[in-house]
Amino acid sequence: MSARIIDGKAIAQELRDAIAAEVAGIAARGGGQPGLAVVLVGNDPASEVYVGSKARQTVAVGMRSFEYRLPADVPEADLLALVDRLNRDDAVDGILVQLPLPGHIDANRVIEAIDPDKDVDGFHPVNAGRLLIGLPGLVPCTPLGSLLLLQSVHHDLSGLSAVVVGRSNIVGKPLAQLLLQQNATVTIAHSRTRDLPAVCRGADILVAAVGRPEMVRGDWIRPGATVIDVGINRLPPAPGAAKGRLVGDVAFEEARTVAGAITPVPGGVGPMTIACLLRNTLQAFKARHGVS
Amino acid sequence: MSARIIDGKAIAQELRDAIAAEVAGIAARGGGQPGLAVVLVGNDPASEVYVGSKARQTVAVGMRSFEYRLPADVPEADLLALVDRLNRDDAVDGILVQLPLPGHIDANRVIEAIDPDKDVDGFHPVNAGRLLIGLPGLVPCTPLGSLLLLQSVHHDLSGLSAVVVGRSNIVGKPLAQLLLQQNATVTIAHSRTRDLPAVCRGADILVAAVGRPEMVRGDWIRPGATVIDVGINRLPPAPGAAKGRLVGDVAFEEARTVAGAITPVPGGVGPMTIACLLRNTLQAFKARHGVS
Repeated sequence: MSARIIDGKAIAQELRDAIAAEVAGIAARGGGQPGLAVVLVGNDPASEVYVGSKARQTVAVGMRSFEYRLPADVPEADLLALVDRLNRDDAVDGILVQLPLPGHIDANRVIEAIDPDKDVDGFHPVNAGRLLIGLPGLVPCTPLGSLLLLQSVHHDLSGLSAVVVGRSNIVGKPLAQLLLQQNATVTIAHSRTRDLPAVCRGADILVAAVGRPEMVRGDWIRPGATVIDVGINRLPPAPGAAKGRLVGDVAFEEARTVAGAITPVPGGVGPMTIACLLRNTLQAFKARHGVS
Repeated sequence: MSARIIDGKAIAQELRDAIAAEVAGIAARGGGQPGLAVVLVGNDPASEVYVGSKARQTVAVGMRSFEYRLPADVPEADLLALVDRLNRDDAVDGILVQLPLPGHIDANRVIEAIDPDKDVDGFHPVNAGRLLIGLPGLVPCTPLGSLLLLQSVHHDLSGLSAVVVGRSNIVGKPLAQLLLQQNATVTIAHSRTRDLPAVCRGADILVAAVGRPEMVRGDWIRPGATVIDVGINRLPPAPGAAKGRLVGDVAFEEARTVAGAITPVPGGVGPMTIACLLRNTLQAFKARHGVS
């Protein structure tokens, strides 16, 4: 048997199309235009690429994109002042400060300075708390995208056994809460877990979010399980090659012969993240403007 | 084999003694006196008993106790005004609004009105978020007490398989986060979980927090496991008896022959809750006054 490949690229495109249609509808009835502000400190090349991609996709769905670039040595106070200005700017519905930040800046302080209702990354403690308690709020983009991919396979997650490997604040912990809200039985496993392969084999839904290339092997997977691979790791280049290839946290070629459905890397969870950022921005706009 | 009985009453007494000693030490060096304000709306008999017990224990460890009693029909605005006053009262380190509240009052709104740094119940979204993210904050009392009981048995929870049955905001979800912080592999099970007995049998640590009398049977327990019973349920009275007896969510007599250690009901988790409330009040005092 060969697993169904979950096409994150296509599902992200559908999501962006739906967002674009909704944004166009709001504009057509004079309801305004959602706006996303992205703040980039310094010029880390990976962050530059990511921020550029966010801006292009924001504009493509009909939203306004505001980009702010600050030098790597910007004082923390200046960054906080910018965040404060964006909090009070009515044209801005979503604020994203691209991480990582330079070492002299306290990232937690910056995140906590963002108005929780504009915190489209979902990293503010108030949004984390709303997620844990089950109140409406903004949810981190990568776990949200992972859930949407799962729901493209399983109409109902209720009662399924879900194992999330990895307990980061950005992916593992929020995704576990989302799965619990969907009535899955959720296990959070991590580096200290004993007999991780056996724990993984108990999963109807297996999510790998650890950042270790191809750690999850084929024989860790229950036959027919759905596998979501959140990892994006670049292998060392082969001799003579300029760049190594991208792989996930799951050994894809082994896993696809066992799993019922699986996300590829690239083209799985990756494309969902920005699409969910746009979804969050639209949600923040609607909440701020009382649009249902 | 018969399980070790975890004596919550004695462990709570030790905790209160340690708190009393620390409070006395702070007073002796002129460092001030922690204060706990408890607000009771209406006159639910169970709440009356509980609030009285809190006040007595607060005074017994050398703290100041402030009690506020409001009529059952108090307007929400008046309650919010009282909370606001307590937030600004420097003599008050902890604020607890006894739940449940009458139906005309929005409990979430009241909880969110409490200064998170005085929220000794740990129910404010900011404290829930800090818990999920792993930032310092105030943690709900019953899960904190449950963790302390577990730690009286297991010096190190790292790598142990913990199953929490129940996903309430007051017990199950926060306790799962505490266990994860202690490096346990954590599964959250609930009413939708398939084959709950089998899931429970996978646990080195089994926590029952569902509010269903004696639901967890002896054969759901792995031999030697540690069992924490958070439930307190009163059975219907036997013929001729005035009151039914108190039982937990675990069938104690069956479980004690299988488990390695188990909490009784009453006398297990119950006494820990108020002791942890005092611990939280001391923690809030120290944080507010910069005492380490």
